[in-house]
Amino acid sequence: MSEDKPMEQSAAERPEPPVDFRTEPDRYRHWRLECEGPVATLTMDVQEDGGLRPGYELKLNSYDLGVDIELHDAVQRLRFEHPEVRAVILTSGKERVFCAGANIRMLGQSSHGWKVNFCKFTNETRNAIEEATAESRQTYLALVNGPCAGGGYELALATDWIIMADDGNTSVALPEVPLLAVLPGTGGLTRLVDKRRVRRDRADVFCTLEEGVRGERAVEWRLVDEVVPRSKLPEAARERARELAARSDRPPDATGIALTPLERTREDDRIAYRHVTARVDRERGLAEITVAGPEAPPPDALAEVHAQGAAFWPLAVARELDDLVLHLRANEEAIGVWVLRTTGDADRAEAYDRLLEDHQGDWLVREVRLYLRRVLKRLDVSSRSVFALVEPGSCFVGTLLELALAADRSYMLDGRREGEDQPPAAVRLTAANFGACPMVNGLTRLESRFLGEPARVDDLKGRVGQDLEARTALEAGLVTFAPDDIDWDDEVRIALEERAAFSPDALTGMEASLRFGGPETLESKIFARLSAWQNWIFQRPNAVGAAGALQLYGTGRRSDFDRRRV
Amino acid sequence: MSEDKPMEQSAAERPEPPVDFRTEPDRYRHWRLECEGPVATLTMDVQEDGGLRPGYELKLNSYDLGVDIELHDAVQRLRFEHPEVRAVILTSGKERVFCAGANIRMLGQSSHGWKVNFCKFTNETRNAIEEATAESRQTYLALVNGPCAGGGYELALATDWIIMADDGNTSVALPEVPLLAVLPGTGGLTRLVDKRRVRRDRADVFCTLEEGVRGERAVEWRLVDEVVPRSKLPEAARERARELAARSDRPPDATGIALTPLERTREDDRIAYRHVTARVDRERGLAEITVAGPEAPPPDALAEVHAQGAAFWPLAVARELDDLVLHLRANEEAIGVWVLRTTGDADRAEAYDRLLEDHQGDWLVREVRLYLRRVLKRLDVSSRSVFALVEPGSCFVGTLLELALAADRSYMLDGRREGEDQPPAAVRLTAANFGACPMVNGLTRLESRFLGEPARVDDLKGRVGQDLEARTALEAGLVTFAPDDIDWDDEVRIALEERAAFSPDALTGMEASLRFGGPETLESKIFARLSAWQNWIFQRPNAVGAAGALQLYGTGRRSDFDRRRV
Repeated sequence: MSEDKPMEQSAAERPEPPVDFRTEPDRYRHWRLECEGPVATLTMDVQEDGGLRPGYELKLNSYDLGVDIELHDAVQRLRFEHPEVRAVILTSGKERVFCAGANIRMLGQSSHGWKVNFCKFTNETRNAIEEATAESRQTYLALVNGPCAGGGYELALATDWIIMADDGNTSVALPEVPLLAVLPGTGGLTRLVDKRRVRRDRADVFCTLEEGVRGERAVEWRLVDEVVPRSKLPEAARERARELAARSDRPPDATGIALTPLERTREDDRIAYRHVTARVDRERGLAEITVAGPEAPPPDALAEVHAQGAAFWPLAVARELDDLVLHLRANEEAIGVWVLRTTGDADRAEAYDRLLEDHQGDWLVREVRLYLRRVLKRLDVSSRSVFALVEPGSCFVGTLLELALAADRSYMLDGRREGEDQPPAAVRLTAANFGACPMVNGLTRLESRFLGEPARVDDLKGRVGQDLEARTALEAGLVTFAPDDIDWDDEVRIALEERAAFSPDALTGMEASLRFGGPETLESKIFARLSAWQNWIFQRPNAVGAAGALQLYGTGRRSDFDRRRV
Repeated sequence: MSEDKPMEQSAAERPEPPVDFRTEPDRYRHWRLECEGPVATLTMDVQEDGGLRPGYELKLNSYDLGVDIELHDAVQRLRFEHPEVRAVILTSGKERVFCAGANIRMLGQSSHGWKVNFCKFTNETRNAIEEATAESRQTYLALVNGPCAGGGYELALATDWIIMADDGNTSVALPEVPLLAVLPGTGGLTRLVDKRRVRRDRADVFCTLEEGVRGERAVEWRLVDEVVPRSKLPEAARERARELAARSDRPPDATGIALTPLERTREDDRIAYRHVTARVDRERGLAEITVAGPEAPPPDALAEVHAQGAAFWPLAVARELDDLVLHLRANEEAIGVWVLRTTGDADRAEAYDRLLEDHQGDWLVREVRLYLRRVLKRLDVSSRSVFALVEPGSCFVGTLLELALAADRSYMLDGRREGEDQPPAAVRLTAANFGACPMVNGLTRLESRFLGEPARVDDLKGRVGQDLEARTALEAGLVTFAPDDIDWDDEVRIALEERAAFSPDALTGMEASLRFGGPETLESKIFARLSAWQNWIFQRPNAVGAAGALQLYGTGRRSDFDRRRV
């Protein structure tokens, strides 16, 4: 199949080990993280021979997935480990370039699936930068100290203030269309018009200028926020960072918590973390994921939450689930269905939600809640079918109930299993279901679910804390089906078999359309309008064919495009 | 190139004559239009051997572009020729089926470009049905009198009330994903969750059920509005139509105007209508389109507007431009850039806008305004680069100025041309620029243009009626560039050459992203989220490869899907 030729050609790629998303600052090869009181500086200094895969050199601060994994880690740690940091300066450690964007040779040799997954992860990380600014009050600004093109400018666009050197050499540019016949697909086009409100005709011109725009025109066109002579750059950035920092509510004297290495074991097709486990069933094309509720009641006092740090159950679950989702997306492409289960004690899970709700003003609790939100969003935008199974012994309570609400559909066993003692399954709503975890479209999963019957969401608020058994949950619209013990096995088995047999591509498009009813936001537009177009272009011979622009880049040869407009 | 194999295989397709979008009820082969007082019935009765292209039979009321061209024409004529019609019953003339959707063999043998263009046109027609209901107060309802699948159900979804036979045999279904490995891409997925507010998990189940849903469950799941025993169907439909008709403000005793045959001449690469002309320059890959302003002042009285009928300048321009856009989209795929010019007298054009504004309460004037809106929307969603050239003698005034505002960018000549007497070019705003012609995202083109500076739109209201010459228009943000006579030729030539040289696919994705900043609506979501995913799937081997589901349908062979999720 044509789209995968690049993969077949680069035989080197096959035997590579799975991508590991776990890292830590000591192991960074491409970034430096320095904190000085309220201002941190995150410096991109990509190691040319440090690519995640062989076959390309990361010149001019261009990046691949490995570079972005470190950025993702740094953004995460700044939130949890550095409560005192209120502004983050994103800049380049290279003399003559800010960032040249995603590495083109890497893109040229990657399979379609790799490219799309890479873009999704980089998009999520840029969204996380914006969320850190807006919600964690850790404002990012970009110090563009050299030419800044493509993904480099898209990275700057994810910050809330862009300072550019006014030196006759530094420009911002989105040269993807003229140079590579692809889109600035990491949010670039969307952020131009929807975030920075660049006038659409100027955006059109800008996106066709290989050389980009520099100096005052870049300010006039709203492409950057200020230009500053080169000699005054560091001072201007520090000053602006201090101003932005002054507006933050982050505590100046709190102690961060260490995001200790995430422990994970893999045996055959079983992946186990402390609270999350998964079994990959290659025969059936599915992964069975189980999330365990808390083993003990929550801490009595906030101080104890801080003392537990990374071991605090909600944070631990967020980290584990996040890593698992990333792992499955990157390394288990052929596993198209994720089956979600939970286990544990409902009262304890509810008590944890109450703790998070009661202390939401605390900086650490806020971070934990935001992280849970991000993980659930990542699940929403994953191109996998998600089914939730609600069985006796499960713990779909509050935050964990969001997993079932995020699922494409859910099955809840009605009554007991014959010959078993366990009480019937029940689900339970908590305050966490009514605002803590909005989706990328800005709605809660309940609001999204009941677009047609908004009064139902209000009714459900009155049922917080109640155990809702299968018939009740079904009537309340919280689950899709509620078969009894006689039908359960067959009904679930057939549904999973059918799902696994459908075209993976058609399912991806269908799920992307049905999951996000209602309003659209910057984020949802990036994952839909922009990414869908980019994915289409990533299939077009004009971009990825043997004579496509992405393949010919740097060879001196020009693509002879099929001129038919579609 | 792999995606076009179907086209190369069906050599029969090449020598076909261009698609002609002009038709009239006497020539319909697939529809019957009957009007009885306030209620019209539009009956689909597709002629099996009446396909637009050879190679497939239109069984089971399945449709191709030819069938949809007639539907488009009928919807149009109902608005203009039948002011007395207030409700339209859409039903099937076949005994045993409502509509089986787009013809699968037709899709299977079509090129990628044909499929995408076909879907865009069918989407526009369904949007027009909804606009007729909402704005022309001619409410469509669907009488589903037999199995209704895929595009058939999507057609029903475009109406505001769906009555289904409760006969054990009739169901609604979207079987595209399980049967064909493509999406219900003519608005189906979007209308399910965003219009009918079907719960997303139920929509998920529904879209994977080949056999669909019938009877009371279809009502409970909000898939249809009512089910009625077969014997009572006609009565139920008439009754409901009368109820809906009673709410309309359309005049019971007005006389419609005839949409007389649209005259068009073609010589070599020149297409000429009365007010619109186009020259296709194959060498340069562009079409030069000129729209002429009114030749005479507008009628003094409303009665005269009605007497002029199809000759009324704004209506004539709308029809001509609409036909031209459809022609270029379907028949001139390799012409990627449309260059828009206008000519004529500004005062007269302004006077026409004033007339339309003053009489907007009149049913015919309302229809003319809505038609202009639809034509401009069609331009917005066309996958062609649109450049406007504002030169001396041009007539970018009010409604015609919307053409320049719809363009990806505009060039306005600053000052006179050396050796010419004509006064410098000027543009002029009228009330028509402030609400008459919203884009698919619900914003006016000015609101869309000034997302970042909303106060500018208000400022511009104060300049209605003024002649804004190039420097002023540039400062007001109404045009992109204003070169003088010395630079004009080179600047415009280079811009057009560059544009024509970029990858057509990358431009399509870029333009689709930059044109629609701000909010999204049902319509904009259909053209972006849904269509972009469908276009992607239309490139995937699982759907369109030699062993893809779309190719194998009906052969008894099953696709062996590439199971990797993207």
